[in-house]
Amino acid sequence: MKDFLEELVKQYRPSAGEGKLADYIPELSAQDPTTLGISVRTCDGEIYSAGNCPERFTMQSISKVITLILALMDQGEKAVFERVGMEPTGDPFNSIYKLEQAPGKPLNPMINAGALVVSSLIKGSTVEERLGRILSLVQRMAENPNIGLDYAVYYSERATGFRNRSMAYFLKEFGMIEDVEATLELYFQQCSIAISCDDLAQMGLCLARLGENDAGEQVIPRELARLVKTFMVTCGMYNASGEFAILAGIPAKSGVSGGILASVPERMGIGVFGPALDEKGNSVGGVRLLKGLSRELNLSIF
Amino acid sequence: MKDFLEELVKQYRPSAGEGKLADYIPELSAQDPTTLGISVRTCDGEIYSAGNCPERFTMQSISKVITLILALMDQGEKAVFERVGMEPTGDPFNSIYKLEQAPGKPLNPMINAGALVVSSLIKGSTVEERLGRILSLVQRMAENPNIGLDYAVYYSERATGFRNRSMAYFLKEFGMIEDVEATLELYFQQCSIAISCDDLAQMGLCLARLGENDAGEQVIPRELARLVKTFMVTCGMYNASGEFAILAGIPAKSGVSGGILASVPERMGIGVFGPALDEKGNSVGGVRLLKGLSRELNLSIF
Amino acid sequence: MKDFLEELVKQYRPSAGEGKLADYIPELSAQDPTTLGISVRTCDGEIYSAGNCPERFTMQSISKVITLILALMDQGEKAVFERVGMEPTGDPFNSIYKLEQAPGKPLNPMINAGALVVSSLIKGSTVEERLGRILSLVQRMAENPNIGLDYAVYYSERATGFRNRSMAYFLKEFGMIEDVEATLELYFQQCSIAISCDDLAQMGLCLARLGENDAGEQVIPRELARLVKTFMVTCGMYNASGEFAILAGIPAKSGVSGGILASVPERMGIGVFGPALDEKGNSVGGVRLLKGLSRELNLSIF
Amino acid sequence: MKDFLEELVKQYRPSAGEGKLADYIPELSAQDPTTLGISVRTCDGEIYSAGNCPERFTMQSISKVITLILALMDQGEKAVFERVGMEPTGDPFNSIYKLEQAPGKPLNPMINAGALVVSSLIKGSTVEERLGRILSLVQRMAENPNIGLDYAVYYSERATGFRNRSMAYFLKEFGMIEDVEATLELYFQQCSIAISCDDLAQMGLCLARLGENDAGEQVIPRELARLVKTFMVTCGMYNASGEFAILAGIPAKSGVSGGILASVPERMGIGVFGPALDEKGNSVGGVRLLKGLSRELNLSIF
Repeated sequence: MKDFLEELVKQYRPSAGEGKLADYIPELSAQDPTTLGISVRTCDGEIYSAGNCPERFTMQSISKVITLILALMDQGEKAVFERVGMEPTGDPFNSIYKLEQAPGKPLNPMINAGALVVSSLIKGSTVEERLGRILSLVQRMAENPNIGLDYAVYYSERATGFRNRSMAYFLKEFGMIEDVEATLELYFQQCSIAISCDDLAQMGLCLARLGENDAGEQVIPRELARLVKTFMVTCGMYNASGEFAILAGIPAKSGVSGGILASVPERMGIGVFGPALDEKGNSVGGVRLLKGLSRELNLSIF
Repeated sequence: MKDFLEELVKQYRPSAGEGKLADYIPELSAQDPTTLGISVRTCDGEIYSAGNCPERFTMQSISKVITLILALMDQGEKAVFERVGMEPTGDPFNSIYKLEQAPGKPLNPMINAGALVVSSLIKGSTVEERLGRILSLVQRMAENPNIGLDYAVYYSERATGFRNRSMAYFLKEFGMIEDVEATLELYFQQCSIAISCDDLAQMGLCLARLGENDAGEQVIPRELARLVKTFMVTCGMYNASGEFAILAGIPAKSGVSGGILASVPERMGIGVFGPALDEKGNSVGGVRLLKGLSRELNLSIF
Repeated sequence: MKDFLEELVKQYRPSAGEGKLADYIPELSAQDPTTLGISVRTCDGEIYSAGNCPERFTMQSISKVITLILALMDQGEKAVFERVGMEPTGDPFNSIYKLEQAPGKPLNPMINAGALVVSSLIKGSTVEERLGRILSLVQRMAENPNIGLDYAVYYSERATGFRNRSMAYFLKEFGMIEDVEATLELYFQQCSIAISCDDLAQMGLCLARLGENDAGEQVIPRELARLVKTFMVTCGMYNASGEFAILAGIPAKSGVSGGILASVPERMGIGVFGPALDEKGNSVGGVRLLKGLSRELNLSIF
Repeated sequence: MKDFLEELVKQYRPSAGEGKLADYIPELSAQDPTTLGISVRTCDGEIYSAGNCPERFTMQSISKVITLILALMDQGEKAVFERVGMEPTGDPFNSIYKLEQAPGKPLNPMINAGALVVSSLIKGSTVEERLGRILSLVQRMAENPNIGLDYAVYYSERATGFRNRSMAYFLKEFGMIEDVEATLELYFQQCSIAISCDDLAQMGLCLARLGENDAGEQVIPRELARLVKTFMVTCGMYNASGEFAILAGIPAKSGVSGGILASVPERMGIGVFGPALDEKGNSVGGVRLLKGLSRELNLSIF
């Protein structure tokens, strides 16, 4: 399996040349674009990794999965889905257009507008407390108590995130967010949580086992573990989710750092990293690697 | 199981009162809105039905699944997906807006614009021959050689389908369709194929068994059976597909006649009918029935 | 004045190099892009021309001014403006997007959708009779009984006008047009009326004199002559109308053939021709020439 | 004339019942909706007023005319129109959609997005200095040195202007605005400048005389006085500008306070006030009054 993974990485690494590094967050543009790595953890307890993964990179949009789980645990499905929809969209992740058409309720929790609303629903009396609760959930899913923020990325995002700030004030206008600045603060922080491919694989495994971690702890309610995997299939890869569902068929969530969290129900968790992105914001090499792996190991859920 | 199904039908029938009959095709508006029925065929060979299903009703958008399969068999994935995308959309099924933004290539084959392109790709030297090939595929999937057109509905659709005609000429402008009038003819005919709930259940079973019918014939290539089920999950229930994936988790395709084709991989095929529609075009009672059934029998693929 | 005009033409002819010939109507793409000419007829009876104008070219969108006048004479303001709006739009002339947002009522009569609705309102029991009435109005405004159709352009437009056909069926869906094919026939014919720069100047003069022609005949009611000049200012130059109002300040209507009809109230009518178009569909040289002329002679109405 | 104006006011006052008070700025919602008043100052030195005008009300969007003039005086046409367009739009004044389609450059200076860009271009080392320069221009146009801010309205707008804040950050994302918070501060202040109907009439007179005030001072360059009147015709009445041009034909700019500044070239300046607004944001009674006045006195420029 290890050799097989190394072979796949070798095969798909050159495709990174077709992508480019994220440039809108300065910290993300200073990486080696040909980096490509993968970690796998199976329900049978096997652990594999291949390629070259950096020690840590930021979660970015992958954090939307975590905050959705936490908001649902905090507020319940009814309260959350009154403020954010369940529908995939053909629009880019940072589009504001649909918000204007049907005022205020973002189409789903995996686009930025929806994720901002979701973050505003996480309980805690201060931003610090709310971040602490997010970090705690990530740590328990990944079974790694050392996960924390990458402050350089956080400061960088906070200083340049004008479009997210625009979006948040737009949502405020329609009463979908209470405290805009606190929500933005939390959002920039959750995006800056630093993890490794191993962490992602372990988190994917937790979802694959319906929310149970290695220690047998039910970290996430079974029903919610299923629910977020559904969102990962329909909206997890931005507006390339449909194609990814067809060609890979694995619940997955990508971030503009180049990381991807994937979870094959009852089989395995997968973490992938490759910083060169396609025009929709997904890791070029990472997507190819997952499609190849799914085809070879017959991982599609369909 | 039969009693269980009757119980479910009884439970969800009143919800039909929240919907209304399709009025844009005159033939569809003359039905009893409280009709609700279901047929189930399992991989173990069991057959159940409950409620009151009409003897036949038209496929409408359910036919998009069939023509997609046939176009893929005729032209291959590459040729088909050069002309139609794989992405779900938050827009209504008959929206023309996105076409104008990214000229000519419809977002997916389950919206009208995409289905028109798909129909234009089906092989045959005449409209009759092409319709014959569609009918033949439906008959083999349903294992019912008597399936044919409902001509009253067909004439009615042809006489009033201005928006589809508009869409087809728009696609012609961008070279995505060759012969507009022949394509529209075929499209109105495929929508008017008359089937029963039993037929739908048998078709769903064929997809659930990766394209094999009762006689052991591989009616559809295994890979394509999987592919269309993926589209059914991401785009099968119009712009309520995301919610249906969360709450039911079953590959399904609805039509404005009130029918729904559903397929639970390796378990069963389901046909549902209830003509009162919600504002997105899905059967109100049918959707509730499938969500309830999925919850009770734990049918979600996620 | 003649020398002055020749000087202006010489000055602005090179700008044609920045534009390109219309290619969507085959007949329009076979012209010399550096052609540029102008005719002027003043309220004092003076007649000037300069540059090289072809003997005849087709009216294209300039005909929208004529059909608007005729529809208003036929049906009255109330009936016409129930079906078409009065607002300029930032969208391109052939956009269908806004129609979908606010179903069916085109924003104004100078975009294609609005012009189709207007054409459908012209009285006459046959297309021939309706075209005859349009031609008669053009002939009386231009005081040239020999104006007729360019049939080669007409056949060409009819064979390739898929987008207009799409638009017309979209309008039919919302009940804004009765007989789609008859309306399209008339529309393609009105666009193919062949005129010269002199004809345009004479027509502009008629509008400048509030609808009176040389013979003292009140060809157009005074109120309507004023009304169409207002539309020419707010929407006459497609989605460059605002800039043209600022920089020239003259009521004008352009067509993709490269012609422009302009009318300076109580002063003069102007006809311009230059087939190289900018990206919004206006004659590059023609627009420059009119801006220069307005600046030199202080023609702005503002 | 005085009697004639009183008659008109009496005639159109009841129409106010069809509108409603602006509710998005709390300070604006506490007025008598049946208030309707008008002031007229002619180039011949005559002064009239009728109806009941409040002593002062805020400029709101009327201030967009003033800041456009000042920005053009400060930066020149080239620099200003590189950042804001000249085209009218069929979209509402607070729409963000078009910004997303053609990133960053607002369609014109009379919609909020464009006005924010314009305000950011006004010279001055502090917000106070820049506001001082705006106030000074208003005072010289109105020949009233006592014009100042209504601080209650200003604080109210600043506290609730989420949509404008959203818009400003969106523009920042595309580099169209430098200092977002300073720009917003200035924008909320300019909207809160308090004037009377007499002030508006005097300002309209200044524009009617091509920028010259009573004292013979050339307050505004002649060319700019003409330019802003053109914008007032094409975009001054939000997305009802086209209809107002047809039915009144007078350069005018409205604000959501219910005021309207109007200027008839070489004839008169007009100030109108009526706080009940139609759905597009224009004073219901004010618009009717101006249309009636234009028809009676033949004021249309077309």
